[in-house]
Amino acid sequence: MGLDALSLGLRTQKSVALRCCVVQETRLDTARIRAARTAIDPIFLDTPLYRCEALEPVLGCTVSIKLETANPVRSFKARGTEVVASQLADNGPRAVVCASAGNLGQALAWSGRSRGLDVTVVASRSASAAKLDRIRALDAKLELVDGDIEVARERAAALALDGGIRLVEDSLDIETCEGAATIGLELVDTVPSFDAVLIALGGGALATGVGHVVKALAPDVEVICVQPLGAPATTYSWRQRRVVTTDSMDTIADGVAGRRPIPEVLDDLLLVADDAVLVQEASIIAGMGMLLDHAGLVAEPSAALGIAAILEDRDRFAGRHVVTIVCGSNVDPDAYHRWVGAARIHTS
Amino acid sequence: MGLDALSLGLRTQKSVALRCCVVQETRLDTARIRAARTAIDPIFLDTPLYRCEALEPVLGCTVSIKLETANPVRSFKARGTEVVASQLADNGPRAVVCASAGNLGQALAWSGRSRGLDVTVVASRSASAAKLDRIRALDAKLELVDGDIEVARERAAALALDGGIRLVEDSLDIETCEGAATIGLELVDTVPSFDAVLIALGGGALATGVGHVVKALAPDVEVICVQPLGAPATTYSWRQRRVVTTDSMDTIADGVAGRRPIPEVLDDLLLVADDAVLVQEASIIAGMGMLLDHAGLVAEPSAALGIAAILEDRDRFAGRHVVTIVCGSNVDPDAYHRWVGAARIHTS
Repeated sequence: MGLDALSLGLRTQKSVALRCCVVQETRLDTARIRAARTAIDPIFLDTPLYRCEALEPVLGCTVSIKLETANPVRSFKARGTEVVASQLADNGPRAVVCASAGNLGQALAWSGRSRGLDVTVVASRSASAAKLDRIRALDAKLELVDGDIEVARERAAALALDGGIRLVEDSLDIETCEGAATIGLELVDTVPSFDAVLIALGGGALATGVGHVVKALAPDVEVICVQPLGAPATTYSWRQRRVVTTDSMDTIADGVAGRRPIPEVLDDLLLVADDAVLVQEASIIAGMGMLLDHAGLVAEPSAALGIAAILEDRDRFAGRHVVTIVCGSNVDPDAYHRWVGAARIHTS
Repeated sequence: MGLDALSLGLRTQKSVALRCCVVQETRLDTARIRAARTAIDPIFLDTPLYRCEALEPVLGCTVSIKLETANPVRSFKARGTEVVASQLADNGPRAVVCASAGNLGQALAWSGRSRGLDVTVVASRSASAAKLDRIRALDAKLELVDGDIEVARERAAALALDGGIRLVEDSLDIETCEGAATIGLELVDTVPSFDAVLIALGGGALATGVGHVVKALAPDVEVICVQPLGAPATTYSWRQRRVVTTDSMDTIADGVAGRRPIPEVLDDLLLVADDAVLVQEASIIAGMGMLLDHAGLVAEPSAALGIAAILEDRDRFAGRHVVTIVCGSNVDPDAYHRWVGAARIHTS
């Protein structure tokens, strides 16, 4: 072995050692994530993962879609609520409450209903009407608050304290991260050769969950989080390595909109994310339009963040193989038609 | 055992015996269909099957979706072309030709490209531009003819004869039926308790394939084929128990439009279909709109036939559990936006 090869070998070993060390420091554990899979209704697992060549000429890179919308709640969130609800059904209180922009609430309502749990969802009065309708239809109690998701979080915590019922806190409760992380297992098991994964960043369950698994099992894959410029708190926090809050938000990507990152989640994110980027609203709308017209997929704004990130920085991704997680499709039809109509006018 | 019970038992046995007899007479064989699964890239198998409660209030029945659009060719057709192409790759000519309205051609191009086959697709000059673009992008030779799919079928047959290359005839070639039939295996394996399956009817591969498996393994499930009133040849043939051709067609459901049913396929269809119904164009458009707005799914017109059938006869399905196969999502964006826009105006 020549000196260069030896040196390279040493560097590689050191790099692997460092990475293992890094991964062990997150709150997540790959064995626990594998165990979490067994608690999840198979209807939410092993979702489609496929290359979408029709998107590639305009994006300039190889694009694979991980599709989390073809299930009874039209988002990835049930992976986490299935873990929570199965634990409660086995051994816990029969009542559970969460704050939600809509997808977590819908998923918890679905998982709770099938296990006879008493589910309460607290949401903003301005949340997506379609999401709120689905929560009601799934037999959950719905309490609406004036204010945004942060106000809803406070109200949910108060309800839990007063009633002695289980509070599910998205991204803080490890089950929500472990459920999301099962997507990571499916990514690394079936597509070993992609270069980067684009993950919608909100509270951080999806990013830390998938990021943990990818860094543990496919460490050369770049983990890139994408957040709207109009709701940048977690990205600012990641960049400054400390919690940064914002006073307001302005984005159509309701599913990832938050103002107060959770310290424990940020700590995990700092270990698994290679980058966090911010995208403009116009790019999110363009991404939704492209997913509809070129891929035949309905994406809610949060689910188009990955495409938006490619659109804003084609050079970065040129010639690489990128996986983007299409994480939800719950849209208000009127707003959706407006958005994709605007995307068509803009690109025609 | 009382007389009534004995009598019922005898009737049941007789019914089962008759059904087994019936199933054995089709050209399909369940063991061969199970074997066909092994030839198909797993990316096309085990597609999402889930209840879509948001559709139910307006349809008045329990609705499950079998989704065949979340794959690289956005339709179920690759299940069949994978079987054909894997046989050719193992032991056959390296060149293959088919006529197609677009989905079969796209699927054959995909399956052929991954196995190094030389694929030619013959299509009508008036076929969906999006489908033709995808065929070209998948490196297939594309020959356009003046006239409809029946003219394209004649031309493909001539090319095959002249060039000594393999002609793939949709629905006649047993591999196309066996591939489609693997959907049936997934239906009966995972949802044992549904009451009816709604299947788009064109040439008949999907209907005879799925119908064979359902009648063999879940004989109490009603197999209902759905065709547009504007392209009714196969339905007329099924009803009259003889091949009925038509001189023209007028439907937006390009994927199921044909004028000359194939006798061998009709024979199979007569054995496995419990009913064949015709639906209006307005119902197809309404079905596409409902799938988009209530289920977040893009369906091409042929894939909305099942919803159209429920819309036209709610009483028939009231309270029952119906599975509809959403068999493709390849639409021209401009036409699609027109259609779903029209559906919204109509229902608002």
